Amino acid sequence: MIGVLSCSRLDLRGIYGPHFEALAPELDLRLPDEIDRPEDVSFMVTFIPADDAFVAYPNLQAVYSIGAGVDAIMSCPSLPPGLPVHRVEDPDQARQMAGFATFHVLWHHRNMGNYLANQKAAHWERHLTGLSPRARRIGVAGFGHMGRAVAKALVALGYPVASYSRSRPQPAEDGVTHYTAGAFDDFLAQSDILINVLPLTEQTKGLFGTKTLSKLPKGAALIHLGRGGQVDEAALIDALDRGHLSGASLDVFDSEPLPPEHPIWTHPKVFVTPHVASICEPQTTVLSIRRTQLQLVPLSA
Amino acid sequence: MIGVLSCSRLDLRGIYGPHFEALAPELDLRLPDEIDRPEDVSFMVTFIPADDAFVAYPNLQAVYSIGAGVDAIMSCPSLPPGLPVHRVEDPDQARQMAGFATFHVLWHHRNMGNYLANQKAAHWERHLTGLSPRARRIGVAGFGHMGRAVAKALVALGYPVASYSRSRPQPAEDGVTHYTAGAFDDFLAQSDILINVLPLTEQTKGLFGTKTLSKLPKGAALIHLGRGGQVDEAALIDALDRGHLSGASLDVFDSEPLPPEHPIWTHPKVFVTPHVASICEPQTTVLSIRRTQLQLVPLSA
Repeated sequence: MIGVLSCSRLDLRGIYGPHFEALAPELDLRLPDEIDRPEDVSFMVTFIPADDAFVAYPNLQAVYSIGAGVDAIMSCPSLPPGLPVHRVEDPDQARQMAGFATFHVLWHHRNMGNYLANQKAAHWERHLTGLSPRARRIGVAGFGHMGRAVAKALVALGYPVASYSRSRPQPAEDGVTHYTAGAFDDFLAQSDILINVLPLTEQTKGLFGTKTLSKLPKGAALIHLGRGGQVDEAALIDALDRGHLSGASLDVFDSEPLPPEHPIWTHPKVFVTPHVASICEPQTTVLSIRRTQLQLVPLSA
Repeated sequence: MIGVLSCSRLDLRGIYGPHFEALAPELDLRLPDEIDRPEDVSFMVTFIPADDAFVAYPNLQAVYSIGAGVDAIMSCPSLPPGLPVHRVEDPDQARQMAGFATFHVLWHHRNMGNYLANQKAAHWERHLTGLSPRARRIGVAGFGHMGRAVAKALVALGYPVASYSRSRPQPAEDGVTHYTAGAFDDFLAQSDILINVLPLTEQTKGLFGTKTLSKLPKGAALIHLGRGGQVDEAALIDALDRGHLSGASLDVFDSEPLPPEHPIWTHPKVFVTPHVASICEPQTTVLSIRRTQLQLVPLSA
């Protein structure tokens, strides 16, 4: 069974290569330039496919996304109509996201950057009020697999947590107040730290612009782990500079890699990470391919 | 009911003053120099009392520690024999500790310091292997109120967690492998990230010296949230410099405030915080005083 590792953004061979070989020797995974007979390729593993990624492979039977968001696959111009797109639902990946989000909640709530700055100056200065998790209300925008794991972790740490998604999630999550589409402004108004893990859709494109950001409480922080294109980066910088927002952690950007000259790199209130919040475990991808593989017909023996 | 705020280390008035007034107007809390008749003082609120802190007050009926560790109170030379020492057990304080410890686990596991350094250089460099929480085994040394909260939070995030205390905790904690006194070395050998929240006792004084640190796996990180005096700071620096340990987060020190010339301040592998991991909420302290107050006899109307 030959699969192609085709991604315009990630070195999938570097990330998955040896794991796949060890875990599933029957899956013959190759990079595009290692494929002699493209008609023998029966599936693709990708995250962000190039526009023409699918053109060369006439006999694809499935495509597997290693990311939670499949927006780039669904909007790829060469995606054959009707080709099954599998998103791997990985509890481990959701926990990576939960840990990553929790780190940034504490970074903002406990002013950890301030301690690092003081350390450089060998300056011992203690802040001992507002340490309680109850001092920060958390809003989690997006309540699928990822959002639920993030909310769960923060509830366990004692933070008051609200969530937002267009419709009411089933089942409800203990200790989390949920807001649906009509109440987005109310959700924003009570989010001292807003964590965005919304998928990229027509509705969420450019969602976090000047107007939305201004509805957050003064001094709020934004943790953006969703998708580039959802946050108006210029509006965010403006809200930080005006002091309406106190800080931001950004893992995704309109343009990735973030261009070296982009002002976000050097903004003193921003923590930049290079789209590393979470990634699907090789084991889970293998299992997911194996599970659906039963329906895949090998094209060459 | 007059109480004295007496602490050689913390500005208790600054931290608690307004909260106590709002929450418990019947408790008349004063600083030592605001007290005219020391014989009217019936209780003390403290964290680290000065050696002679208790001398002036002949009619104390109780002392309340705002910290989880009461070692400094118990060893205070002027503590009257038999005076009840109350330690406030605050679930909120334990959650603060859990959040703080979780932050530092992610700091080390996900190399967050590296991203900050890359950000300064506008350098986009991704590390996408080893992101799973299963990639780091956590050891929690000390399994009281605090240790349990820390372990619980990390289990929820998917980390493999082991705990250590002299005797077996009751009840056992789901998902946590417990090691008791005889198995300390085994506990160390499996701790990729060791979190210390042990109390300061004769047994734990100087516990983390060259020998103990060398039993941690190569590349391990130490998160020290217990008490100054437990970690041999010179041995720790040596273990970091030799590369046996990959990093450390230190919140408590032999000498606090950490002296400006101390080499730990500038060590590139160390994250220094000024003893701020957690503090008891004013509400809890008030409730705790009120609960025991029934037994306290007011000395002046």
